[in-house]
Amino acid sequence: MTTLRKQRLGTCYYPEHWPRERWETDAALMAEAGISHVRIGEFAWSRLEPEPGRYDFGWMDEAFDVLGAQGLRIVLGTPTATPPKWLVDTMPDMVALDDRGDPRRFGSRRHYCFSHQGYRAECARIAEALARRYGTHDALEAWQIDNEYGCHDTVMSYSRAALDGFRNWLAQKYQSPDALNRAWGNVFWSKEYSSFDAIDLPNLTVTEPNPAHVMDFWRYSSDQVVAFNRLQADIIRRHSPGRAVSHNFMGSEIAFDHYAVGADLDIATWDSYPLGFLDRDTSDEAVKLRYLGVGDPDLQAFHHDLYRACGQVRNGQSEGRWWVMEQQPGPVNWAPFNPAPEPGALRLWAFEAFAAGAEIVSYFRWRQPSFAQEQMHEALLLPNGDRNEGWHVCKKVAGELNALGAVAAPERADVALVFDYESAWAWAIQPQGADFSHLDMALRFYRALRRAGVSVDVVPPTPQAVQGRKLVVLPSVYAGSAALANALSGGDTHLIVGPRTGSKTRDFQIHPNLPPGPFGALTGVTVTRVESRPPFAPVALDNGTLFEGWREFVRHGDDVTVQARCADGHPAHLVKGRVHYLAGRPDARLADSVVRRVLADAGIAPLDLHRDVRIRDNGAIRYLFNYGPEPVDVSPWTGKGDALLGETPLEPRGVMAVRRA
Amino acid sequence: MTTLRKQRLGTCYYPEHWPRERWETDAALMAEAGISHVRIGEFAWSRLEPEPGRYDFGWMDEAFDVLGAQGLRIVLGTPTATPPKWLVDTMPDMVALDDRGDPRRFGSRRHYCFSHQGYRAECARIAEALARRYGTHDALEAWQIDNEYGCHDTVMSYSRAALDGFRNWLAQKYQSPDALNRAWGNVFWSKEYSSFDAIDLPNLTVTEPNPAHVMDFWRYSSDQVVAFNRLQADIIRRHSPGRAVSHNFMGSEIAFDHYAVGADLDIATWDSYPLGFLDRDTSDEAVKLRYLGVGDPDLQAFHHDLYRACGQVRNGQSEGRWWVMEQQPGPVNWAPFNPAPEPGALRLWAFEAFAAGAEIVSYFRWRQPSFAQEQMHEALLLPNGDRNEGWHVCKKVAGELNALGAVAAPERADVALVFDYESAWAWAIQPQGADFSHLDMALRFYRALRRAGVSVDVVPPTPQAVQGRKLVVLPSVYAGSAALANALSGGDTHLIVGPRTGSKTRDFQIHPNLPPGPFGALTGVTVTRVESRPPFAPVALDNGTLFEGWREFVRHGDDVTVQARCADGHPAHLVKGRVHYLAGRPDARLADSVVRRVLADAGIAPLDLHRDVRIRDNGAIRYLFNYGPEPVDVSPWTGKGDALLGETPLEPRGVMAVRRA
Amino acid sequence: MTTLRKQRLGTCYYPEHWPRERWETDAALMAEAGISHVRIGEFAWSRLEPEPGRYDFGWMDEAFDVLGAQGLRIVLGTPTATPPKWLVDTMPDMVALDDRGDPRRFGSRRHYCFSHQGYRAECARIAEALARRYGTHDALEAWQIDNEYGCHDTVMSYSRAALDGFRNWLAQKYQSPDALNRAWGNVFWSKEYSSFDAIDLPNLTVTEPNPAHVMDFWRYSSDQVVAFNRLQADIIRRHSPGRAVSHNFMGSEIAFDHYAVGADLDIATWDSYPLGFLDRDTSDEAVKLRYLGVGDPDLQAFHHDLYRACGQVRNGQSEGRWWVMEQQPGPVNWAPFNPAPEPGALRLWAFEAFAAGAEIVSYFRWRQPSFAQEQMHEALLLPNGDRNEGWHVCKKVAGELNALGAVAAPERADVALVFDYESAWAWAIQPQGADFSHLDMALRFYRALRRAGVSVDVVPPTPQAVQGRKLVVLPSVYAGSAALANALSGGDTHLIVGPRTGSKTRDFQIHPNLPPGPFGALTGVTVTRVESRPPFAPVALDNGTLFEGWREFVRHGDDVTVQARCADGHPAHLVKGRVHYLAGRPDARLADSVVRRVLADAGIAPLDLHRDVRIRDNGAIRYLFNYGPEPVDVSPWTGKGDALLGETPLEPRGVMAVRRA
Ligand SMILES: [Zn+2]
Ligand SMILES: [Zn+2]
Ligand SMILES: [Zn+2]
Repeated sequence: MTTLRKQRLGTCYYPEHWPRERWETDAALMAEAGISHVRIGEFAWSRLEPEPGRYDFGWMDEAFDVLGAQGLRIVLGTPTATPPKWLVDTMPDMVALDDRGDPRRFGSRRHYCFSHQGYRAECARIAEALARRYGTHDALEAWQIDNEYGCHDTVMSYSRAALDGFRNWLAQKYQSPDALNRAWGNVFWSKEYSSFDAIDLPNLTVTEPNPAHVMDFWRYSSDQVVAFNRLQADIIRRHSPGRAVSHNFMGSEIAFDHYAVGADLDIATWDSYPLGFLDRDTSDEAVKLRYLGVGDPDLQAFHHDLYRACGQVRNGQSEGRWWVMEQQPGPVNWAPFNPAPEPGALRLWAFEAFAAGAEIVSYFRWRQPSFAQEQMHEALLLPNGDRNEGWHVCKKVAGELNALGAVAAPERADVALVFDYESAWAWAIQPQGADFSHLDMALRFYRALRRAGVSVDVVPPTPQAVQGRKLVVLPSVYAGSAALANALSGGDTHLIVGPRTGSKTRDFQIHPNLPPGPFGALTGVTVTRVESRPPFAPVALDNGTLFEGWREFVRHGDDVTVQARCADGHPAHLVKGRVHYLAGRPDARLADSVVRRVLADAGIAPLDLHRDVRIRDNGAIRYLFNYGPEPVDVSPWTGKGDALLGETPLEPRGVMAVRRA
Repeated sequence: MTTLRKQRLGTCYYPEHWPRERWETDAALMAEAGISHVRIGEFAWSRLEPEPGRYDFGWMDEAFDVLGAQGLRIVLGTPTATPPKWLVDTMPDMVALDDRGDPRRFGSRRHYCFSHQGYRAECARIAEALARRYGTHDALEAWQIDNEYGCHDTVMSYSRAALDGFRNWLAQKYQSPDALNRAWGNVFWSKEYSSFDAIDLPNLTVTEPNPAHVMDFWRYSSDQVVAFNRLQADIIRRHSPGRAVSHNFMGSEIAFDHYAVGADLDIATWDSYPLGFLDRDTSDEAVKLRYLGVGDPDLQAFHHDLYRACGQVRNGQSEGRWWVMEQQPGPVNWAPFNPAPEPGALRLWAFEAFAAGAEIVSYFRWRQPSFAQEQMHEALLLPNGDRNEGWHVCKKVAGELNALGAVAAPERADVALVFDYESAWAWAIQPQGADFSHLDMALRFYRALRRAGVSVDVVPPTPQAVQGRKLVVLPSVYAGSAALANALSGGDTHLIVGPRTGSKTRDFQIHPNLPPGPFGALTGVTVTRVESRPPFAPVALDNGTLFEGWREFVRHGDDVTVQARCADGHPAHLVKGRVHYLAGRPDARLADSVVRRVLADAGIAPLDLHRDVRIRDNGAIRYLFNYGPEPVDVSPWTGKGDALLGETPLEPRGVMAVRRA
Repeated sequence: MTTLRKQRLGTCYYPEHWPRERWETDAALMAEAGISHVRIGEFAWSRLEPEPGRYDFGWMDEAFDVLGAQGLRIVLGTPTATPPKWLVDTMPDMVALDDRGDPRRFGSRRHYCFSHQGYRAECARIAEALARRYGTHDALEAWQIDNEYGCHDTVMSYSRAALDGFRNWLAQKYQSPDALNRAWGNVFWSKEYSSFDAIDLPNLTVTEPNPAHVMDFWRYSSDQVVAFNRLQADIIRRHSPGRAVSHNFMGSEIAFDHYAVGADLDIATWDSYPLGFLDRDTSDEAVKLRYLGVGDPDLQAFHHDLYRACGQVRNGQSEGRWWVMEQQPGPVNWAPFNPAPEPGALRLWAFEAFAAGAEIVSYFRWRQPSFAQEQMHEALLLPNGDRNEGWHVCKKVAGELNALGAVAAPERADVALVFDYESAWAWAIQPQGADFSHLDMALRFYRALRRAGVSVDVVPPTPQAVQGRKLVVLPSVYAGSAALANALSGGDTHLIVGPRTGSKTRDFQIHPNLPPGPFGALTGVTVTRVESRPPFAPVALDNGTLFEGWREFVRHGDDVTVQARCADGHPAHLVKGRVHYLAGRPDARLADSVVRRVLADAGIAPLDLHRDVRIRDNGAIRYLFNYGPEPVDVSPWTGKGDALLGETPLEPRGVMAVRRA
């Protein structure tokens, strides 16, 4: 039995920015645009508490009333990302220190150190005050805790509070300095400690610090984000029963474990800015040029799948509740260059999210402010209050959603791609080749899967998450575990194992059996050497594809078939039964060919999509997207079902939805 | 009636660097080279006051005598750019702090914070001592206060003195924290202040600070330069009646308002290093290669016109007295690469300045030192005292000036290009596209005007400055004013309005009527969206030209004609009567075509100059310059008047002067 | 009479990293691989002295026994590059400060300030303890003091200890502030000091400090390295008679005077990582691609020749004892990209070193650690203890060395190339063109000599070192001396003088006679102007070659022949008798043509080598190397002697040795 649910639109609204007499107009315009949800309050601390201990809830009460009167469902943010100046002045050491030891001061946002216990207490206080006041308000649907953890590189702090916390954390973890010395290998370069109090934060060292030292500090820092978030989540749950708790994650942010934070959330949300991310995260200039006004065809989809795995995590699995909390409505202000979306792009983005199961797509923001840092960030309304292009798109999409009616939540996909935060940290700490990253490795396989028309779950490296899949991809998962290897070794699961997988223990030591460590038996492979190579020197394979930047030299057992070799004869693609080992970083053509072959083996027929077309199957509906600048005949991929939305040829930046046969 | 004046040569001399017995030789060699003016003293504090309060004027007295005996007219510098070590040691907090909060210490020059009141008092003391001693000396012609304000990024300081001064300045300006909060929009991100003493300098923030905060700090910092300069100007005027007061500005320096400093000067001067600036300020490699030994054909001319507007500002207008205080005499030492001038280049530079009305062109420096920081900076004499190439050029130019005799001062030009320091700050603070700057925008139009053979006044955005012109160009003037719009809306003035003009209020808020704000009625245009685009993605226009990096989406009234459109149909060049709005950043061909068309409309026939040729009309004389490596037949542009200098074909790096018909 | 000596292999071993029960296996495997020498102890302070004053020599005693039992000869390192945490905690100010004034803290290595007297005393203490315990041990062959001086940019420190030391050093050198003021030219910009205590370290200045100030600080800092090293050398010599003292230098490290440190050593050694250096020090991408897996064909050879000049310096000359203390055995971990050596590369590297006279080539390291910073640095054994490729290469080379038997030490070469540390500092302090460096200039001539098949001595700029050579090359030797000029002016020595040579006095002033100063009479040349030019604007010569980036304008006497001119007519290559002056930085073709012509004049026939082939004559043997990816017929260059190793065509990365006829 499938649960059906209606997908809705939202927006982010700042009543405190606008004259009181405008609020009714805004609420009416929201309703007119088909918006059902509105996020408020997440930066309003200086208005909610203008002086220490003096709360001013009057205006917020009115905002609830005005918005509620239009039937809008409210998501209330706790304002802890923007402590007011009076608070910072009472505890100046609450700000984070950067890795030079300089303070990261008041004047923008996120000016706090996650480790500072005094600031945590203040956050608990304001969260409790809000939860007590609004926790059971009729118009309240959900909470957002804080805003964009990690934004502006704020997870790590090199403060005294962090130092004290880190020493404590290490003492808890290792129990004795000797155990820590052994785990880190501190005999190397005489780095042995005789006391936890002798250990520094890993900044300002002469050359790179011990990677195990850094790894533990990243773990510690991630744990502080989790604890910071949980403190408020617990308070809110106490005073606001039945309301969902959420946080809005960011794109390409890897500095803390989002699965772990997600375990304390009911709904994972994220902030999707396809054009800003294209400029920031996509390196190929030809891709940037082709998709300048619509964004990378795979990057937002990847994040949709990733954050679907972070919502409502219960018993090691996600129930998959997720939203887009902030959706780009026009040019933004924060990328080096901020182009305008092409016509159609806003609508395409909304349906990409809905196709991936988003419950809500919420636009950031309602009205463009004429003042302060984000005055050049476009919104659904112009700075003067007139309707902007986004408002009209919103209204159109709202109508289309109504026409589609309730749809099924996403099913568990046949294909799972593992994305692991510790692996992302590991390769950021020790890239070994300057351009190596876990996210890049994951994306190489994700893109190939998506180019093959396959819908994917992105999952953590847990046995539960990979159980029973037809295909699992492990892209450079640094440690892995015997349990994970076990979960993958029985049954029918096909497996693609990328380079560096299993190469380390969790102590950041090379695995004693040599890489791929726990996956040695499964793959039949032993890695004896790795090399990283500059971009101008890829390794050619005998099938004409390339290893880009990373190549491994492996030994293998007799039961392993060498499917492809490097031009110099070293094995490149090795197969043992259903398990494929790739001894290098594949270029797009190699990733495509491996993925397609294994998909076929696994009984999933890969599609031959047009370069600009992407599809997504969700419940009873197949969605098709044309990211390109020309119309495309998509009839080869629509199936026989009724068209619910759009038509073929599919217009540029167009969306089509068909009933799956 | 036109005033005629003789144009002269000068040099910068450091008697304190050379043995006493050499001075007479130097003075005689100056006279022999036709030099009439000599600047001295501006770095000599440690010799003028070797110990606290003990002045040593003996050597300076002698220098006055020796130079005066050769009839040389002296420009005396106050030495406040180089406080001696004993002074810094008595008030260590007088140095500026950089934006990390680190001190910018003694050991080179400009090691002071403009906000430091103690240092200001010291400057007043030494200036008064000098003014009393030399203020009425027969050989003294003029003063230079300090040296190159802003050089080495020294306008901004993040010191305690700056913090105190800034808070005070804000209190004066806003009178209440609430007024400031409203003006800055501090409700955004809970940045509201309850006291002026709670406001920090805008450095070390987690992400970018409020642009209004930064803008006020830049204004404050600029005001300190003005006040610092005025303090000495007032003292000098008190003790040195009838002598002109000057300061030497720099190229491409925008960190303070040069018009405002200029209001306290009798003569604006600047330091012109065409080869150093080519390397620093010109981005096109083909241009750099073609003009490597002669400099960008438009960059020094732009600065001549700009600083002509800064000299002797009285009642909102400039009388136009200006000099080149430092003229490059050979390779310098401070650019990443320091090529040699091509044969002819030195002479061309001198006449470019004289053509633009310079009273004096003064070479930096007389003799190349063999020691310290500038030992690789060439001079008129070699380090060993022998005549260098520059000396011979100097002598030749002096003879030619004598032959030309007295010439007219520049007339008010028909064409005015607005250059505005606040706009330069605004777009540096909020570029929105990484490569956007006011100087770049101004230069795009300036180059087009100069390529059309037109002589231009660069002016501040004041009603007086634009009154009665045939053509005014407003390149991205961020705020503008109703008064400016009024001054431009009556009469016959043609107007070219570039993108971003009028887009903000002076509080750094988006204009409530949307851009172009006060120019909305004049242009008939409303800007509803802007986009910035990376260099590889320009916007094509239907006439084959380009918008580079910046494009606006506009609505327009019925009385507006769309002269050109973007390839995707959006209006690009809109015309309402005599007013042209350009909705993007023009490439050279677009700038040329718009400028030429409007010039023709305004009754100024544009010329079709050879790519290497530039011309300048000044009073009765037309000057022609060949910046290129080949001879050029310039007869199409000489008119029928007598040749006063040079001949056609004009030799590479050659200069021609003809009497205007 | 020639001394014959056997060339041997070594390795670097860390018994403290491995279980005690493994040591015998390791020692036996070393012996099996033909290794005779083993370096131990240089990072083991925390194990040698786990607590203040409590030594633990037991494990080291056992290591001596176990290794000695296999006949291995031990090189014992003093552990002063890695002071343990307890020591840093007792004297926190012993760490260096970086040029921002921030501490460079514990957590990696080299966390000390050379100027700190307290730390020096601790180093003396631990060195004496080790020297007393092991100084006369049978198995002990030599000492290594500390490790890689200068690694991680650690020569300069901006600490209080350095400031005090520098003031003292200046007082000793100049005796009076006035003398210093005159030498530095401090009258410039009022930088005069009235006391040595007023002088700061040359960091954090507003713009560049006085180059003379920086030069003295670099000299001071280099002197501290010398003093630091000498302190331990003296102690060791006192307690360990007959054992050689060494230090392991680095590639391309110029921050201290290696000749001066070498004067206190018996053996100079260096750490050769051809692939890491290719990535770091070679700018040409085509070269990087061709030699990605084997390294730049000339860079390691240059260093072999350089450090041969640093070993056992006695009476201004080197006896030439040198080793490779660390030889790359596979991919390393510290370059941005870390490719694998091509097959054959390890063996080629070993014989390049032996051909240049290395007594020992020692592999870093014996076994790849699974932990800490260098876990990705390959070794002779895999992390799990199995033999890796390097072990097998080692064994093969050991066999070949045995077959070759004892060979002659290198003879004094006919050709000497001067490399001078003060010159390297001078041009780093004052490049004048961004890409100018002494090392680059030296390499341009070195490569040309090596391409001509000539074996070269790299030497300091002393009369003794150049005496009696057939050809001496002076590449941009900044000061030179009359004594050096004298040594070169009599006799038959041919001389190539590069640009900037002799241009300064040792006080960092332009030479009073103008450049080339002391070499003016010898060359017949006077330099009146220099220019530096960006990479896209080289100067063409009339013979089709280029000056790249640097060009000088010279006057010359009648006895000078202009051999080549720039396209604009300025003299480029001037010849006076046997002395050649090059007025610019030569491209490879110009360097080749000048070097070949002068070699021929000097009676040394240049060879026409294949682009990938290099040769080296040493005593009775000629070595030939093929750095390329294809076999090469090397018979034109083998002579008639017997082949001792290899054959023609020479395999890729192959080595050939033939008896010289
Ligand atoms: Zn953000
Ligand atoms: Zn300057
Ligand atoms: Zn090193």
